[in-house]
Amino acid sequence: MAKELTPRNTDYSQWYNELVGLAGLAEHAAVRGCMVIKPYGYSIWENMQAVLDTKFKETGHLNAYFPLLIPKSFFSKEASHVKGFAKECAVVTHYRLKNGPDGEIIVDEEAKLDEELIIRPTSETTIWNTYKGWIESYRDLPLLVNQWANVVRWEMRTRLFLRTSEFLWQEGHTAHATAEEALAESRLILDIYAEFAEEWMAMPVIKGVKTESERFGGAEETYAIEALMQDGKALQAGTSHFLGQNFAKAFDVRFTGRDGKQDYVWATSWGVSTRLMGALVMSHSDDQGLVLPPKLAPIQVVLITVHRSEEELDTLNLRLGEMAQELKSAGIRVHRDKRDDLRPGFKYAEWEMKGVPIRLSLGMRDLNAGTAEIARRDTKEKLSIPLSGLANRVSALLDQIQQSLFSKALAFRDENTTVCDDYLEFQRILDEKGGFILAHWDGKVETEQRIKDETKATIRCIPLSREAGAEKGNCILTGQPSEGRVVFARAY
Amino acid sequence: MAKELTPRNTDYSQWYNELVGLAGLAEHAAVRGCMVIKPYGYSIWENMQAVLDTKFKETGHLNAYFPLLIPKSFFSKEASHVKGFAKECAVVTHYRLKNGPDGEIIVDEEAKLDEELIIRPTSETTIWNTYKGWIESYRDLPLLVNQWANVVRWEMRTRLFLRTSEFLWQEGHTAHATAEEALAESRLILDIYAEFAEEWMAMPVIKGVKTESERFGGAEETYAIEALMQDGKALQAGTSHFLGQNFAKAFDVRFTGRDGKQDYVWATSWGVSTRLMGALVMSHSDDQGLVLPPKLAPIQVVLITVHRSEEELDTLNLRLGEMAQELKSAGIRVHRDKRDDLRPGFKYAEWEMKGVPIRLSLGMRDLNAGTAEIARRDTKEKLSIPLSGLANRVSALLDQIQQSLFSKALAFRDENTTVCDDYLEFQRILDEKGGFILAHWDGKVETEQRIKDETKATIRCIPLSREAGAEKGNCILTGQPSEGRVVFARAY
Repeated sequence: MAKELTPRNTDYSQWYNELVGLAGLAEHAAVRGCMVIKPYGYSIWENMQAVLDTKFKETGHLNAYFPLLIPKSFFSKEASHVKGFAKECAVVTHYRLKNGPDGEIIVDEEAKLDEELIIRPTSETTIWNTYKGWIESYRDLPLLVNQWANVVRWEMRTRLFLRTSEFLWQEGHTAHATAEEALAESRLILDIYAEFAEEWMAMPVIKGVKTESERFGGAEETYAIEALMQDGKALQAGTSHFLGQNFAKAFDVRFTGRDGKQDYVWATSWGVSTRLMGALVMSHSDDQGLVLPPKLAPIQVVLITVHRSEEELDTLNLRLGEMAQELKSAGIRVHRDKRDDLRPGFKYAEWEMKGVPIRLSLGMRDLNAGTAEIARRDTKEKLSIPLSGLANRVSALLDQIQQSLFSKALAFRDENTTVCDDYLEFQRILDEKGGFILAHWDGKVETEQRIKDETKATIRCIPLSREAGAEKGNCILTGQPSEGRVVFARAY
Repeated sequence: MAKELTPRNTDYSQWYNELVGLAGLAEHAAVRGCMVIKPYGYSIWENMQAVLDTKFKETGHLNAYFPLLIPKSFFSKEASHVKGFAKECAVVTHYRLKNGPDGEIIVDEEAKLDEELIIRPTSETTIWNTYKGWIESYRDLPLLVNQWANVVRWEMRTRLFLRTSEFLWQEGHTAHATAEEALAESRLILDIYAEFAEEWMAMPVIKGVKTESERFGGAEETYAIEALMQDGKALQAGTSHFLGQNFAKAFDVRFTGRDGKQDYVWATSWGVSTRLMGALVMSHSDDQGLVLPPKLAPIQVVLITVHRSEEELDTLNLRLGEMAQELKSAGIRVHRDKRDDLRPGFKYAEWEMKGVPIRLSLGMRDLNAGTAEIARRDTKEKLSIPLSGLANRVSALLDQIQQSLFSKALAFRDENTTVCDDYLEFQRILDEKGGFILAHWDGKVETEQRIKDETKATIRCIPLSREAGAEKGNCILTGQPSEGRVVFARAY
């Protein structure tokens, strides 16, 4: 833990990799591109899951589980879907190993599958093949199902949490009687994602719709939330797709309406993944380590004694035990660092690295004065607080930290969002400052592609805020008419 | 839902398959041997997970996540482990699909992996390869980690929940400084499993240790809980392994003790799976459908109106809404069946099939009398109860049902547990009655094998209760000396 991080402005990417390791979040696995999510990192993910799962259930969704393995032939059924995923699939071809001639373990060639199986990169195909058996009439709709699962996409360039060959996620798959209902569902989920990002992760996001070229394979419309990382790059943090009747047609899922007429079912799918962990790290952390918003921190307050003798330690521990109990009773997540053979400074650095929002230390002088020393992880401010009414004070401070992290991130995003009408200026901003650029675009795929080729910037989304009344203008590249500004950025 | 189940005594196996489908628990997937866990079934599994996860965390365990894919070479490192699992592995050999000459989707032969990857059948190998990097000294021990995950074992004969090619489970993997600590851990977990089975699933279990031939590949000792199903067959419901230093040696995981000396780490692993769902179904259900213990039931009380007019319906709904609120406030899981166009009888049959512990129906006559009609799913008893103090009454009844299910299952097990000292009698009992047979065994693998070959009965376990003081005797097959009775049964 004496290790220091590479500062962010020296090498942001290096800083990120080191931080993910040193804070105990994740590490590379033996299999290329895969990760081990370590207990501390996983407990943050569990907190995320608990919040999202509650929100899904409150809006009528139920969890279920669909198989990991998908018959290869399923992928041929929806043309744009296979295009989007076939390049990066892990393929199971055999179902048995055996001992080779020299005693080593080899694949048993006699145990070859008739049809290869694909490890799910996403589950639309297998789920719509199943929904065929579940949906007969309007009575069976809407069908609102989610699953928490692992998926595999064989990525060539991977980074912990941000892009890994295997990742964890939730994927919602819903079926509706009308296009309007399905569209409303995809927007409802987008709102849930945005609310989660802003209120829990303290990460401001732009809600928007993807351009045709950035759409999910098989979707009519892809909605997304886009966040801005500290290095000025954008990160897509969640997507919600309106799938139209594409999968219903591909898997022949029809329903009988109240009027007795048959029609194909309307669909949505939506997901967020362990990628959110990467977004969380890159939204708030600093050169001393992780900074966690209190609402998601596995430990909200760490309690440490500062003592010079065994006797002092016993006295302090007695009081600290009571304080821990008081905080726990108030629903605050507390950890007492009882490693008596480690120096306070060592402990401070370790909990700083792990991003615990509040460090509370108690020495004899504090105890005699009826106070404790509190250190805020986010601002590094230290303050002495009275022990009376401790739980209320800590609780209020945690709220304040949560709010402050969001405000800071929002201010950063505002500073790094530029309205731009000149293509040279556009390129200069991307190279020198990064961030979001609000610019006009003529709506053509070719224009988008040319801008991407020339600047590495992509259209992150057409912001939904534009719906309220767009400012018309001229495309930054072609000068052709534009219906309103879109959000450009270089992205993860 | 008008469908009726095949009665248990006509064809138990058929009854089980039909019930799992009709109660909405699970169904077969497109991939051979795999299952879709439907929302209602999955919500029972979620309740199981929540209880177990809390128990694991209360005893100091943290969750983490390890990769799905394991390099083939890892399996060669622990000799008895590969023997136990190599026969049934799904093998990933390629990482890309492409379009074939006729436009169909085929495996891209250029995207062949250098080393094949195995979909985890269990994660000891990949986890111990990781622990090597996590453990240096006694300070890092004990390491108490669990993961909730999917695993694949290519089973040839599958049954929903009981034996599927993919299943969900939790697998705990712990590392300790001494053999004693590791043994204590494996016994602690066995106690947690037994407590969960008895107090939550209302399913009595025998705690015991497996014989050498039934041990987990790589374990020094395998503990298990064994339950008895309604058809007289045993079901292994959970296992906890003391792994000795086998995996530490295979993956070279050593630690420096307080005394400065190096030693290999001691290990345990333990798991329960969606197999518990099958055990739950077969412990309590009847010819009308599922019977669920209240503590695990997704819906504990279903509320139904019995009305003859729209006006009556409105009146009843008003009161039923208040009642639902009262029950919810008391922490009772309630569902109002508001499908007004279905007859009460149809609804009754459906919720009976789904095993909801209490059905509460309200008609005008009830309302005027200040009562409601309650039907217990387990005994099918009907009683009229006063609406005053409803939540307390329902709560007490749920406790009573939970207790009653356990007592009934325990009585069944007692009736179907036979002490036997004669081999012909032993065979007769197996054929005519089934159940557990407590008999003497000489401790020899050959004897165990011969009994298995001749009777299809296996030694389910050497009961831990024997430790208290065993009754010595003579082996039921060979007449050789025996240290105490063991538990025989035909098993799932």
